[in-house]
Amino acid sequence: MKKLKIAMLGFGNAGQAFAKMLELKRKEIIACYNVDVQVVAIATGTKGTIIDLDGIDLLKVCKDVESYGKFTPGTKGLTHADSLFVVKHVDYDLAIELTPLNIFTGQPAIEHIKNAFLRGKHVVTANKGPIAWAFRELKEMAETQGSMFFYETTVMDGTPVFNLREHTLKMCKVTQVSGILNSTTNYILEELAAGKEYDQVIAAGKKAGFIEADPAMDIQGYDAAAKITALLNVLMDADITPDKVDREGIENITVQDIKDALARGKVIKLLCKGEFAKDELAKDELAKDEASTKTTEDGISNKPIVLASVKPVLIDKNDLLASIDGTSSVVSITTDLMGKISVVEHAPEIEQTAYGVFGDLLRVLEGLK
Amino acid sequence: MKKLKIAMLGFGNAGQAFAKMLELKRKEIIACYNVDVQVVAIATGTKGTIIDLDGIDLLKVCKDVESYGKFTPGTKGLTHADSLFVVKHVDYDLAIELTPLNIFTGQPAIEHIKNAFLRGKHVVTANKGPIAWAFRELKEMAETQGSMFFYETTVMDGTPVFNLREHTLKMCKVTQVSGILNSTTNYILEELAAGKEYDQVIAAGKKAGFIEADPAMDIQGYDAAAKITALLNVLMDADITPDKVDREGIENITVQDIKDALARGKVIKLLCKGEFAKDELAKDELAKDEASTKTTEDGISNKPIVLASVKPVLIDKNDLLASIDGTSSVVSITTDLMGKISVVEHAPEIEQTAYGVFGDLLRVLEGLK
Repeated sequence: MKKLKIAMLGFGNAGQAFAKMLELKRKEIIACYNVDVQVVAIATGTKGTIIDLDGIDLLKVCKDVESYGKFTPGTKGLTHADSLFVVKHVDYDLAIELTPLNIFTGQPAIEHIKNAFLRGKHVVTANKGPIAWAFRELKEMAETQGSMFFYETTVMDGTPVFNLREHTLKMCKVTQVSGILNSTTNYILEELAAGKEYDQVIAAGKKAGFIEADPAMDIQGYDAAAKITALLNVLMDADITPDKVDREGIENITVQDIKDALARGKVIKLLCKGEFAKDELAKDELAKDEASTKTTEDGISNKPIVLASVKPVLIDKNDLLASIDGTSSVVSITTDLMGKISVVEHAPEIEQTAYGVFGDLLRVLEGLK
Repeated sequence: MKKLKIAMLGFGNAGQAFAKMLELKRKEIIACYNVDVQVVAIATGTKGTIIDLDGIDLLKVCKDVESYGKFTPGTKGLTHADSLFVVKHVDYDLAIELTPLNIFTGQPAIEHIKNAFLRGKHVVTANKGPIAWAFRELKEMAETQGSMFFYETTVMDGTPVFNLREHTLKMCKVTQVSGILNSTTNYILEELAAGKEYDQVIAAGKKAGFIEADPAMDIQGYDAAAKITALLNVLMDADITPDKVDREGIENITVQDIKDALARGKVIKLLCKGEFAKDELAKDELAKDEASTKTTEDGISNKPIVLASVKPVLIDKNDLLASIDGTSSVVSITTDLMGKISVVEHAPEIEQTAYGVFGDLLRVLEGLK
């Protein structure tokens, strides 16, 4: 039986849920793939780091974190090493990147992933930063190094978006992507529409865990911008970064705006969107006609430019988008051959994030065959 | 370069659209798969049959059918052979089943597919009859014969449903399936809700091509029952037939029912649904606890029973299902690991049916590698 050694970088709620799912499915994985999957390292910023090449007892460390908020003294392999040390020096096959996101840089996740690739290791990331800020570079590194690189969880948890395109929409060219991808703003807009006060909504949302301590990244549209960037980089080969997104948050939406919309049978939603620039599309068609080539003489790609936006928009109450409520989200993908389809994730829990990582792990196992 | 020879059974709108898509993508297929795909036979009931092992000129025969409604005299290889003869005797690698559906028997499609498998040929079907009436038998035949068998198009055209589960929800156990799958009834209910008269709706729908000459199969829920059966047979291994579905059409829905619903903020939709019988689920859990076995001593499968229904139900106007209008459709899949997700097909054209068949062809090409 083969062995796959995992280094987990980060061990928050999603990491713990993934660890439990892995334990639950350990036997099934062995039966399906004939691979014994073991977590040999868990590196965290605040809970400590464990390195144990014999395999970490995941249920025990989950219990410790639940009880004490950190790994407990006496845990075999407990060290002070940081995540970069683990990435660079521990003997693992697959790094799972789950560290906290810096939405303005994608770090330190990008650095972790690069160092894993430099060692020829495989990477699964649930962190959207690297896909939003450095996708093409990382993808090319993975190809050069013969590493597998999966990132389904970075947008809409384990809901198939990237895999949907890769495995079920073969030979389709994606021409437009749109969606409601930030649940905090969706929740706030909904509660305001229901007549609640802004401060009251924020307070209740924080209490329920829908809204973060500092919700500015959500309210100003930064989170949504990172998500649409990740989608466009993967689905449309856009090669953009979040700062290129035409971004407008919901901070200037008033209760009166929402009331006015309702009176017209509409709701306000923070919509993410990306599509080819129109004249660029025309140029692309022209290039195709001329020489069936997409590369200019000096080797610079002549691909059409993708325009991305995040904006509050008026949505008809009967539209699918209007029905996306609470923590649900949706992405719509338009392609040349298959028209428009949408995928909706309904009221996800942390297990759906864990499944995204777990599904990518299964893809790594398949790739090892 | 390898060659893949296709026999098409049926050449209606979907078949013609598929033929055009195949021509459009011929070069790309060669570049991707190094396989030259040729249609060597097209068998139809009313347009004639063509058998030409050198490869049929698809654009020419599409043009002939558009102009004259049938293959024209002088077409190379034109014969009077019927589809069963083609399946049994022509030299092909892949049969594509596109013959008209008999919703009460699944024939003659089932017979076509069996005869293709008996010869060790691969099969792609867009015809839901075989998946609704004989899925397990056909699946087992394909496995025994080493044949590939794909059927994405049978529900919601090329929208990924079966491939979604197979390729993007690995190791997930499907626990519930629901959806709005019949666009004729959806259209009728919508138009009635908009205040139109029943006869007027039917006449307009027929004119627009949404409603068939005899819409009884749609209105009485037979089409929806066949679709939910196909979904459950594949996604939940239900092993049922459409006559086992607890079926109620929209024939008894009155305009008053619709008005009453609207007054309560609801709409009426013909909902398809399938889930495990509750006490059967408990039995299944028990069996797992006892012996981790699902087979009784005499070899009879002890799998939980799947209950299927097609019924008009009241849906809240804010619900996703209420937003599914026109010819759009939706399927929601609930699994143990990934919660509930939905896939929506928006206003499909015949190209989306063609893409379903085309996508399955690409899977066959991949399987040949």
